[in-house]
Amino acid sequence: MPLVDLDRFDFLYATRVKGMKSAVTRDLMATLSRPGIISLAGGFPDTKAFGEEAFREISQAIAPDAAQALQYGPTAGLESIKDVIVEVMAAEGTPARQEDVFVTTGAQQGLDLIAKVFLDEGDAVLCEGPTYAGALNAFAAYRPKIAHAPMDRAGIIPVAARETLMRARKQGIHVKFIYTVPNFQNPTGVTMVAERRKELLGLAREFDLIIVEDNPYGMLRFEGEPLPSLAALEQEEGDVDRVVYLGTFSKIFAPGVRLGWVHAQPGILHKINVGKQGADLCSSNLSQMMISSYFRNADWKSYVKRLNGMYRERRDAMLDALAEFMPKEVHWTHPEGGLFVWATLPSYLDATAMLPRAVAKNVAYVPGEGFYAGGAGKNHMRLNFSFVEPDKIRRGVEILAETIRERMELRSDMERGSRQGRSQKGAARSGSRASGAGR
Amino acid sequence: MPLVDLDRFDFLYATRVKGMKSAVTRDLMATLSRPGIISLAGGFPDTKAFGEEAFREISQAIAPDAAQALQYGPTAGLESIKDVIVEVMAAEGTPARQEDVFVTTGAQQGLDLIAKVFLDEGDAVLCEGPTYAGALNAFAAYRPKIAHAPMDRAGIIPVAARETLMRARKQGIHVKFIYTVPNFQNPTGVTMVAERRKELLGLAREFDLIIVEDNPYGMLRFEGEPLPSLAALEQEEGDVDRVVYLGTFSKIFAPGVRLGWVHAQPGILHKINVGKQGADLCSSNLSQMMISSYFRNADWKSYVKRLNGMYRERRDAMLDALAEFMPKEVHWTHPEGGLFVWATLPSYLDATAMLPRAVAKNVAYVPGEGFYAGGAGKNHMRLNFSFVEPDKIRRGVEILAETIRERMELRSDMERGSRQGRSQKGAARSGSRASGAGR
Repeated sequence: MPLVDLDRFDFLYATRVKGMKSAVTRDLMATLSRPGIISLAGGFPDTKAFGEEAFREISQAIAPDAAQALQYGPTAGLESIKDVIVEVMAAEGTPARQEDVFVTTGAQQGLDLIAKVFLDEGDAVLCEGPTYAGALNAFAAYRPKIAHAPMDRAGIIPVAARETLMRARKQGIHVKFIYTVPNFQNPTGVTMVAERRKELLGLAREFDLIIVEDNPYGMLRFEGEPLPSLAALEQEEGDVDRVVYLGTFSKIFAPGVRLGWVHAQPGILHKINVGKQGADLCSSNLSQMMISSYFRNADWKSYVKRLNGMYRERRDAMLDALAEFMPKEVHWTHPEGGLFVWATLPSYLDATAMLPRAVAKNVAYVPGEGFYAGGAGKNHMRLNFSFVEPDKIRRGVEILAETIRERMELRSDMERGSRQGRSQKGAARSGSRASGAGR
Repeated sequence: MPLVDLDRFDFLYATRVKGMKSAVTRDLMATLSRPGIISLAGGFPDTKAFGEEAFREISQAIAPDAAQALQYGPTAGLESIKDVIVEVMAAEGTPARQEDVFVTTGAQQGLDLIAKVFLDEGDAVLCEGPTYAGALNAFAAYRPKIAHAPMDRAGIIPVAARETLMRARKQGIHVKFIYTVPNFQNPTGVTMVAERRKELLGLAREFDLIIVEDNPYGMLRFEGEPLPSLAALEQEEGDVDRVVYLGTFSKIFAPGVRLGWVHAQPGILHKINVGKQGADLCSSNLSQMMISSYFRNADWKSYVKRLNGMYRERRDAMLDALAEFMPKEVHWTHPEGGLFVWATLPSYLDATAMLPRAVAKNVAYVPGEGFYAGGAGKNHMRLNFSFVEPDKIRRGVEILAETIRERMELRSDMERGSRQGRSQKGAARSGSRASGAGR
């Protein structure tokens, strides 16, 4: 085999590859599975909780239908799993009809297909700032502009979102949809309050656009009351269903089966169907049947409850450790559910630059930069608490706090140094001036 | 819920959706699973052959690793399955290195990702004519021009391919890659002869482009000698590896696990990796681990041999029935493997228009139109022989032959009618002339 020049075919690639970048979490994946490392980086649920025995049961239950499990399935998914999805959505408080459900290869594929169906180059998407990095990756292939509207503790700020939409309209930029993760957002852990959900729907009506509601974590609530989904609110109030709702089995069952869904009105689902045919023909029958079997025969709600108990304990461990170890200049969110805490460092710190140092100390996190389209977010870090046991979370946060403190000290040393330098230079300058004056 | 206007959001869709169309096979899927129907339409392997017991064994074998099977995996795939892929490629005569293998959600995703990575709007792809409809669907989302080069029994015709490439060059159209299914092509069942494989590689070198070699059926050979893959030839002769090879477990194991792969040089795989992150993050660990377990512990080559024995019998049943029942004006290919026979009807017949009539008689096939980008192929049909037992194939072909004969008779009745009509008109005209003359 001849030696390979890595860039030999650079001239052949599509323009879009320039805008597509690899996610830090994905690049870190090999590192993260290194023994001894405490990874607060991934967005991994704890699949050990499911158990070998339960796995044996569901795979044995579908064995009599092996021929179907191993066969191609319908593009939109098997009827049996659509029934399960309707049940899950009902449990989340969103009424759904089986025929408005479309099965995807993880909710990630839903993001790709929505972007494929709606985005021409130069169209825009309004996202929370920060937003899910994987959504930015999916969208990037279709070359849209990304407009971030800022968030606070109550979610995206509607006034800011409206200003952004107005500005886009004036500039002749077509915003095709608003993308939001309303519950325990990735990366911030923030939940959008009910009033803002209504305001966001109002904006969508005013500007006649779609809302893509990505809700992977909605059922992972440890405290507080569940809020109505935008999809549910829209069904109550809207003249037409303008919410495209994305769900997934990754967090309430398992990501390894790669199964999610889109709930939307038929016209949109028809376009998504055609997109899915080109993308991967259909989702795995095997995965669909294992999930159907499990959700029909097992007490899935108890399992989610068990997960929530576990994640709550881990979140508490993280919040406690943050309070105990972090310098007072560091701030963080207090999520009522989900997988993530978002930490904000002093603005002069660069979490991306700091990562290798943390990894060398056997702790990983995701730097904030990847959650913004435009290079903002450098002084943030996303911390995952779902995958690691409480004592390791504690130890991990302690090490992180050390690393941050080192950097802060380095900075104040440098500042002192530079002040000294400046005063020395100042002295030298006055000296030279003095000497000049002495001429 | 308000009444839904299907076209309410038409103004929001991307331009590309206009070029994306639904595959006949996918649209027919509900019809095809109707009891009593003889479907020669799908591209389905016979997954009943695998067996419930074998399914139980492989799922039990991975149960101890359930936590991993249910978790997210690396974007490029698990190491264990890449080892299996290297072994399968070696069995097909193509040396491969583990690090040049990238796991995809079916080979269909490979097609989508290659198109995503290489095609800007207006770029071109050179395909066989006819070509795999699913490839056209995947490519369509990126809005390329499709140039078909005609085939004969020995595969794509290199002289014609070269002319097409020259013409594109003159017109300033950038052909990014040649797409080919060299073995038992979908839809024709034709295999490209060895000499032409070399000529096609020569063309790729001359025009400095990539060849995408899609080889789902290579191991399904019932007679004749295996030919070297383009990837293998390129490794022997090429200065740089310009073949992107697509493989799949769909035909040698099962499509229901949705697992395929891309083998290419690292620079290309890197771009594909980034594309895959946006598309679906990673392929199913569950599927990968079931396959790894099976290929390591079972005699997969015997299973493929068994499949080939079964498919050979079915192909023979189809060829025999075609010879027995079809009108002499109908022609068809004689595949040495794979899943499909391609039938050519008299040029005045429209297989698309004829389909509802055939389905009413409980037989389905795929009309040829979908295998061309530009509306050609109407008088062809793709007939699948892998999924249906020999006696049903025989009965299905008999019914199809009846349907075709009906159409041919209708046509000759109409021709007679129109000749009569013409002669009557002629007579009337002469009459009127006569009467005119009598005036």
